[in-house]
Amino acid sequence: MGKPKIVIVGGVAGGASAAAKARRCSEDAEIVMFEKGPNIAYANCGLPYYLSGVIENRDNLLIVTEKRFQQRFRVDVQTQREVSRIDRARKVVVVRNLKTGSMEEEPYDRLILSPGSSPVIPPLPGVDLPFVFTFKTLEDTDRIYQFVREKRPRKAVIVGGGLIGMEVMENLGLTGLKVSIVERLGQILPFLDWDMAELVRQHAETKGASLLLSQGLKVIENRNGSGMVHTEVGKTVKADLVILSLGIRPNVALAVEAGLEIGETGGIKVNEYMQTSDPDIFAAGDCVESIHRVTGKPFLTPMGSVANKQGRAAGANALGRKIAVKGFLGTVILKVFDLTIAKTGLSEVEAQQASFDPLVTFIHPGHIAEYYPGSKPLHMKTITDKTSGQLLGGQVIGEEGVDKRIDVLATAIYHRMPLDELLHLDLAYAPPYSAARDPVVIAGAIGQNFFEGDWIPITPTALHEKIESRGNLTLIDVRSRKECLKEGMIPGAIHIPLHHLRDRIDQLDKDRETVVYCRTGLRSYLATRILMQKGFTRVKNLTGGTMSWVYPVKKGGLR
Amino acid sequence: MGKPKIVIVGGVAGGASAAAKARRCSEDAEIVMFEKGPNIAYANCGLPYYLSGVIENRDNLLIVTEKRFQQRFRVDVQTQREVSRIDRARKVVVVRNLKTGSMEEEPYDRLILSPGSSPVIPPLPGVDLPFVFTFKTLEDTDRIYQFVREKRPRKAVIVGGGLIGMEVMENLGLTGLKVSIVERLGQILPFLDWDMAELVRQHAETKGASLLLSQGLKVIENRNGSGMVHTEVGKTVKADLVILSLGIRPNVALAVEAGLEIGETGGIKVNEYMQTSDPDIFAAGDCVESIHRVTGKPFLTPMGSVANKQGRAAGANALGRKIAVKGFLGTVILKVFDLTIAKTGLSEVEAQQASFDPLVTFIHPGHIAEYYPGSKPLHMKTITDKTSGQLLGGQVIGEEGVDKRIDVLATAIYHRMPLDELLHLDLAYAPPYSAARDPVVIAGAIGQNFFEGDWIPITPTALHEKIESRGNLTLIDVRSRKECLKEGMIPGAIHIPLHHLRDRIDQLDKDRETVVYCRTGLRSYLATRILMQKGFTRVKNLTGGTMSWVYPVKKGGLR
Repeated sequence: MGKPKIVIVGGVAGGASAAAKARRCSEDAEIVMFEKGPNIAYANCGLPYYLSGVIENRDNLLIVTEKRFQQRFRVDVQTQREVSRIDRARKVVVVRNLKTGSMEEEPYDRLILSPGSSPVIPPLPGVDLPFVFTFKTLEDTDRIYQFVREKRPRKAVIVGGGLIGMEVMENLGLTGLKVSIVERLGQILPFLDWDMAELVRQHAETKGASLLLSQGLKVIENRNGSGMVHTEVGKTVKADLVILSLGIRPNVALAVEAGLEIGETGGIKVNEYMQTSDPDIFAAGDCVESIHRVTGKPFLTPMGSVANKQGRAAGANALGRKIAVKGFLGTVILKVFDLTIAKTGLSEVEAQQASFDPLVTFIHPGHIAEYYPGSKPLHMKTITDKTSGQLLGGQVIGEEGVDKRIDVLATAIYHRMPLDELLHLDLAYAPPYSAARDPVVIAGAIGQNFFEGDWIPITPTALHEKIESRGNLTLIDVRSRKECLKEGMIPGAIHIPLHHLRDRIDQLDKDRETVVYCRTGLRSYLATRILMQKGFTRVKNLTGGTMSWVYPVKKGGLR
Repeated sequence: MGKPKIVIVGGVAGGASAAAKARRCSEDAEIVMFEKGPNIAYANCGLPYYLSGVIENRDNLLIVTEKRFQQRFRVDVQTQREVSRIDRARKVVVVRNLKTGSMEEEPYDRLILSPGSSPVIPPLPGVDLPFVFTFKTLEDTDRIYQFVREKRPRKAVIVGGGLIGMEVMENLGLTGLKVSIVERLGQILPFLDWDMAELVRQHAETKGASLLLSQGLKVIENRNGSGMVHTEVGKTVKADLVILSLGIRPNVALAVEAGLEIGETGGIKVNEYMQTSDPDIFAAGDCVESIHRVTGKPFLTPMGSVANKQGRAAGANALGRKIAVKGFLGTVILKVFDLTIAKTGLSEVEAQQASFDPLVTFIHPGHIAEYYPGSKPLHMKTITDKTSGQLLGGQVIGEEGVDKRIDVLATAIYHRMPLDELLHLDLAYAPPYSAARDPVVIAGAIGQNFFEGDWIPITPTALHEKIESRGNLTLIDVRSRKECLKEGMIPGAIHIPLHHLRDRIDQLDKDRETVVYCRTGLRSYLATRILMQKGFTRVKNLTGGTMSWVYPVKKGGLR
């Protein structure tokens, strides 16, 4: 190619990254970028915060204007142009001008597809009513923004309690709306395990959020211009505004029609160079499937940060470079009221689905030194392959310091780090930033203790099932009397404060299954060590203690 | 050993960790812990913040009381006992009771040394005056605390501008004292490179700090109960309170006298199991030397977080376990007024000293998405081995988000990660926490660009030297006219805004050494790409742009 002609379909995260990188790789290339919508390279992930006014100025969302992009990169940016067909034999795309309706052909040497994804709209009555919206693009946001300011709705229902649903819930709430979420599953934020999502649900409800779980949308009814949302279990919620937030699907129609290979996840199949089954066609962003670094299997991870990396590689490789994309971990983070919620790698459920035998631990250390003002508890769950010792995933919830720990875990998992090695990380320590034992280091230490044979954890859910099934069990609460009285006890527990355990050990049956617990799992670990060394053969420690216990407790249960 | 007897010398970070871990490994062991001072297991790193009252309650510094430690771990804690000699042949230590003066012998099967370190006191006149203090222990802190509250000093001088000196400066300043620092070197915080330390110095001076650099202490003079501090260059500063903060030395007298091997750094030599040259004697904490994971060489890293890890391993291994300590990175973090300053791995100077050929890059991205309220610039320097591509070190300065990035870099360096692989990290992205391109990912991308041959950086210091030596150079400022007028230009630069560069390229000499710069290094990278592709053979990009330029600029220099 003397002067290669690069055509890019889509001008937001993946497409704009590809165009900019392509230019940096070649001053000579002719680069044309078609975008269906009116804007390119806008801050998709900032949209919920613009709804609420947290981001005040709409212009701030437009990261690069069309004009500056053309000036800086000499890319021929064509907005409101929809690429409707790829003719691979002739190497042209057919483009519809959405302003005029006219059709044109554009030849390419290399084509980069980054058409993004579309919101899932369920085939249910009422989803096309005028007060029902999807929330995906800047134009969607503009429509909702205008509706809220003009029609002054008082009640909103969001259908779907995933990441976007929860972000929109909080931001709509900030405008004064009363917001309910309707969710088909038994939990919000399905990328989390139930036990972690439950902490978020409880927090959201203390903030006045109304979360209707285990009930999908059935129908939206129009009553005099505002709506009634009916759920599958017969519940009805009034709504002046409904937002459908049921996830997204990769936009693959163009690729399918052109005969490009589509993966099992429904995304376009690409190799590590973002090359599709046609070597002259690359793809990036929400439309492709990625490789999960832990499972090695394809998955969808529609994030702006992912699209940028993929677009950059696609742009370079379309010009003959060989820049690999090394897979992703499905890392996510979001804010829900006072909490930050983050996850990387596999959840416990996902680890089981991928046939791992997971070691699960919970810890609840302060996000900084507990003696320093402003320390807030973190809730950290780690999932580890018992066979290899490799850390598979982490989930962190808390008011502060969550993003730091999830990024350290993501970096660790990138390197297939064993859980116990986290202990060795030389993380930055000063009281305003961390404890001398950082939460990540603590997770490593308790992992090492497990692999050294010093303790066996039991999860809250496993213990709860055991109690429900009335198993034969000694359950020992080693907290102080004051804590038991104040916070209640797990049903069926007996109370032996840690510092009396050695003296009362002879009252206990060495051969009976024994579970110990405290508030966080630390004192009960010490109790575990005492019991195991004194010949107790079947001791388990409730990992995370009562701070991980999301089930009912028994008040006044002390004896 | 039926009931092994473990004796521990020192009861703060390393010693207390060792004692607790030893008990968890053996219920049967007899464990005795001697501490010279009156307190065990207190929060050493919190002491500066107690001086100021940021930490209000002294009790909060006492993490575990003697009584609870005894109750919980059945460790025989003996405070105000100084171990004065080790008789290795008879396996006993000789202990002085500091309350009574009496001497006793204590036999051991395994001995763990964790006597800490002592402040360096220079042999200069006046260091023993009553208003001159060191700052290391809780007792030191109590003395200064009392002096400040009782004597109401108005001016303080801190001798030494290292980490502790700077922390004490800020915290004393919060009590209303006017504080000056006297530092022998030409920079504060000597673990940083000069160019990063200079950013901190400039910030501290805008906050009213008085920093006297390149002048060591000569003498402290007593004038009617308050002092005059004279420096080596003849400067005199009034001081009602002087704190000597000239670093610390490992306490090795006991080990030396017992004939244990001492390393070249002056710390006790231990293997990865924290075992000294006597297999029955272990050591941990400030008294030992550690292995630097990057250089593989011994170094001193006196941090509480390090001592805890070493103590834990020593405690376990003294009872027959085999728990390795895998080396450290010298990670440090501190707060200076509004800034957080952090470093991990090698500095540029340290990399040169270790015979690496370092690639140095600076970036200044926002700590979160720049369109989200509250985004603050980070200043990040990375040091990479040009030969292997391996990241050797990082330095980060900023108001927010510094601790997160340094911990990710520390985790990356632990894994000997190549700089360009940082690009692949799947870090958590949402606007309140990060940009779609996290600063760490940006560092990876510009690293990949370097190793792909797309640009060559020049550091501010190298450019400054080139300008000073009046080298033959085309220096191009590609910022906007407005920025040049507002912020001034680097002396000798010509101004060609990026979007005019392509049109004016024919005016430039392709074969002349050419340096381009902008505000951060991004636009000048784009300029570099244009120039290189148009046949300019000797183009360099000022890494970090004017935001890294700590030298004077020329105001009104636009032409």
